[in-house]
Amino acid sequence: MTDEKLMSRLSLNQITTEQWNLEEAVEGCVRHDVPWISVWRHKMKEIGLNKSKQLIKDAGLQVSSVCRGGMFPAATAKERAERIDDNKRAVEEAAELGTDTLVLVCGPSADKNIDSAREQVAEGIDQLVPFAKDYGVKLAIEPLHPMFAADRSVINTMNQATTIAEKYDPSEVGVIVDVYHVWWDPNLYVEIERAKGRILGFHVSDWKVPMDDMFKGRFMMGDGVIEINRMRKAVEAAGYHGPIEVEIINQSIWDRDGDDVVQEIKQSFAKHV
Amino acid sequence: MTDEKLMSRLSLNQITTEQWNLEEAVEGCVRHDVPWISVWRHKMKEIGLNKSKQLIKDAGLQVSSVCRGGMFPAATAKERAERIDDNKRAVEEAAELGTDTLVLVCGPSADKNIDSAREQVAEGIDQLVPFAKDYGVKLAIEPLHPMFAADRSVINTMNQATTIAEKYDPSEVGVIVDVYHVWWDPNLYVEIERAKGRILGFHVSDWKVPMDDMFKGRFMMGDGVIEINRMRKAVEAAGYHGPIEVEIINQSIWDRDGDDVVQEIKQSFAKHV
Repeated sequence: MTDEKLMSRLSLNQITTEQWNLEEAVEGCVRHDVPWISVWRHKMKEIGLNKSKQLIKDAGLQVSSVCRGGMFPAATAKERAERIDDNKRAVEEAAELGTDTLVLVCGPSADKNIDSAREQVAEGIDQLVPFAKDYGVKLAIEPLHPMFAADRSVINTMNQATTIAEKYDPSEVGVIVDVYHVWWDPNLYVEIERAKGRILGFHVSDWKVPMDDMFKGRFMMGDGVIEINRMRKAVEAAGYHGPIEVEIINQSIWDRDGDDVVQEIKQSFAKHV
Repeated sequence: MTDEKLMSRLSLNQITTEQWNLEEAVEGCVRHDVPWISVWRHKMKEIGLNKSKQLIKDAGLQVSSVCRGGMFPAATAKERAERIDDNKRAVEEAAELGTDTLVLVCGPSADKNIDSAREQVAEGIDQLVPFAKDYGVKLAIEPLHPMFAADRSVINTMNQATTIAEKYDPSEVGVIVDVYHVWWDPNLYVEIERAKGRILGFHVSDWKVPMDDMFKGRFMMGDGVIEINRMRKAVEAAGYHGPIEVEIINQSIWDRDGDDVVQEIKQSFAKHV
């Protein structure tokens, strides 16, 4: 792939520049020729959906995804129904913002029964699919690293995500491959191949040791141990040629000047993705 | 199982009381009627093998395992051969200390090629098996949580461990089930059943959020989300009825009085294991 073609797939996942509000992030993308952005709902809500939509449209940016729906398991049926309602709002927002991809971080268990929580995830997705379909929005299940099984998601492997997705048409439910979450998986390349035609996003960052912070411990591509380029080629072989989101959650990156960060991202992306 | 029978299986994994040297740990076990101990090599080396052996024998303690062999992958063939030599010393030490179980923490990759590192682990074990067999020592592959894939072990699931172990007789190679490392695994109970007759140890602690320290973030049984009792029953159904090691790596526990810690362990063990 030419450098130019690769760079045309670069998407700034907005959490990478948490120091910027949505307006600043949009302006940053324009300033640095980043053609895509992934919008986080908490950022969008600061200025409202309409203004967010207008900003992105005026800037000529494309939206690779909205982050995030999910968080399906809960202690009571009432709470689970409220989660579905919130997911429906997320679907509407994704459609309004012009993306067909809603990323699902599926949520932790409300108690010690992780099996039951995993069933609640499957049930929640099943309830959401017809609604999302009406809006032309695909549900993109993102497996999270097993170290987040207790507090962020009980969906921890590509195998789990694809097993749920396979119950639906590829136009309805698919999976996100985030290198940080799945690089360790002994079945990774088998599972990427299995997800052929269902991959809805490819997220990059890196894993570096020692890691002082599990949540905010993601590094710039090339600074760690992940075979990012090998994984990109694998997801391409499995049919994914869409935007590639740079999603780096790291306090020391948030503490820097946003323009510096985006410049480094572009260099790191060209070299290591 | 009666409380008495369960307590007869309690083993103090020595890293839990890192504040104690081996002599203090042995005395602590005697003082609190803990019948088993798992010996760490760095503690043993402080006083030497002979004195360690004598202390344990005089105290009437049984040794559940020696921790640890492993660390097979390395950048050069020479280094890998050195690792095998060190593993042979560990086998000898296990035999001298009167246990038939050497725990293997298999090691990280020397570079970005995790597949190659995994092959090096399999090769290392293959080289070690005949030597260990001569000493009557079983190699116990411990899968480590995927969050340790970059710095401690590329063997991260029960499936990987059992797949290697199955190449050998159950009297030669088996697996350790440590709740902290495997509790999140969607295939956990299937894999425990698959490992039937090959489980060489069961380690307990707990996983609590938020976790401030990946390495020293283990908690007392009952303080977290792990279904410890369910897992104990599963490993028993798979034929394991041996000692149960309490292995809690946590700075705040190391900062406490060792006797207090062991007393709490006994209560927590009786209630939650």
